Amino acid sequence: MRWLKLTLAYDGTAYAGWQIQPDQPTVQGTLQGAWREITGEQVRLTAAGRTDAGVHALGQVASVATESTIPNDELCRALNARLPYDMAVLAVDDARQSFHATYDAVSKTYRYRIDNGRIRSVFDRQYSWHYPRPLDAYQMQVAGQALVGRHDFASFETAGSERPDTIRTIFRLVVARGSDDQADFITLEVEGDGFLYNMVRAIVGTLVRVGCGARPGEWVADVLSARDRRRAGQTAPAEGLFLVHVNYG
Amino acid sequence: MRWLKLTLAYDGTAYAGWQIQPDQPTVQGTLQGAWREITGEQVRLTAAGRTDAGVHALGQVASVATESTIPNDELCRALNARLPYDMAVLAVDDARQSFHATYDAVSKTYRYRIDNGRIRSVFDRQYSWHYPRPLDAYQMQVAGQALVGRHDFASFETAGSERPDTIRTIFRLVVARGSDDQADFITLEVEGDGFLYNMVRAIVGTLVRVGCGARPGEWVADVLSARDRRRAGQTAPAEGLFLVHVNYG
Repeated sequence: MRWLKLTLAYDGTAYAGWQIQPDQPTVQGTLQGAWREITGEQVRLTAAGRTDAGVHALGQVASVATESTIPNDELCRALNARLPYDMAVLAVDDARQSFHATYDAVSKTYRYRIDNGRIRSVFDRQYSWHYPRPLDAYQMQVAGQALVGRHDFASFETAGSERPDTIRTIFRLVVARGSDDQADFITLEVEGDGFLYNMVRAIVGTLVRVGCGARPGEWVADVLSARDRRRAGQTAPAEGLFLVHVNYG
Repeated sequence: MRWLKLTLAYDGTAYAGWQIQPDQPTVQGTLQGAWREITGEQVRLTAAGRTDAGVHALGQVASVATESTIPNDELCRALNARLPYDMAVLAVDDARQSFHATYDAVSKTYRYRIDNGRIRSVFDRQYSWHYPRPLDAYQMQVAGQALVGRHDFASFETAGSERPDTIRTIFRLVVARGSDDQADFITLEVEGDGFLYNMVRAIVGTLVRVGCGARPGEWVADVLSARDRRRAGQTAPAEGLFLVHVNYG
């Protein structure tokens, strides 16, 4: 038995999320199917972040234990030859024994894209949230710093999650408007040691309330300390969210 | 009667091209349908460039003569409210009497995107040609300059076209590799007074033969002077092509 680390990119538009489900196209199910065709093995791939329906990945990481002796490069090529064009294996690397993509992650980085143009960008419709009201990215950036550090993020967790503990650490949160031909786009990038269910999307929905002028920047700290989901902004739509990078230290 | 100039963006993936056809989704048919819903008028929209199936537009221009008195901004909003999300009207402007989007154009600019990464970019699969063999963008740029100027481009025209005259002028042709996170992409941008059927895609297929080292740069001038389509490279796939801008002087 050997342990492997797979780095993956996928366009989440056509998938009901990472996690395998009966009668639904899922990222995990599609990958495990391709793996079985190549190796004959029925493996279980574990992802660093179980992305929801419509959420994308630029650098998802999955761990797998295998009996296959196919060289890593060949495995990578064979998987890409079988996967649909909206998924790609970027790398297959050896990992230490018992490597676990979720538990061994030191931090994860997510990106959220807002299309803030008056008229939607037709090419970004599946890769951004079209929010046509003017947004002040600088105010969002300043207000968002209240969330950096170790906090109880209960106000930013969608109910129904099984996670017993709502304390997480955000290492970095940056909101910026693009330049040149990206000037209509606002990007939020956030790195943390873990994220509650829909946490990034609730942060985006909250900062947008500040960005459009409906709430002052100080309101974000009030939302955080309330530990009450009803106090925060809406859950921003899935299609703007990307899992960018997983750091294993 | 008044004449209008519409500036349009669309993702061509789902369309059988600009030109209206029975029982096929087309850009022209979709736009004229939305126009009829709003104004009650059955108009005929004329495009600057009749893009083929799968070809995209960032700045297509269409002309129309209308009896409608709806203000331009309102017309723009109403069209966008009815159009599918893969099409958008960027602007509706007054035009001079008898304005014709095709005949009045002074130049058109097309862009072609090649995904030259070893592993396909899942997010660009419908907006680029995935060509994984290494390409030398600089050699393509140098070789491409043979095409700039007034020439007979018969070698770059797909047979079956009705155009009687194959002489066109290319004002500018630039091939460049992207920087930073676009380093896997090569972009060709070409501005000309008009383009023969599949001309940009045949130019791309020809320059790729130089870029991959199969042909020397000087071969491009030989292809041009041969006036024979069989001498040029393949027609590059539609999904990499964008109509970027139409200039009316």
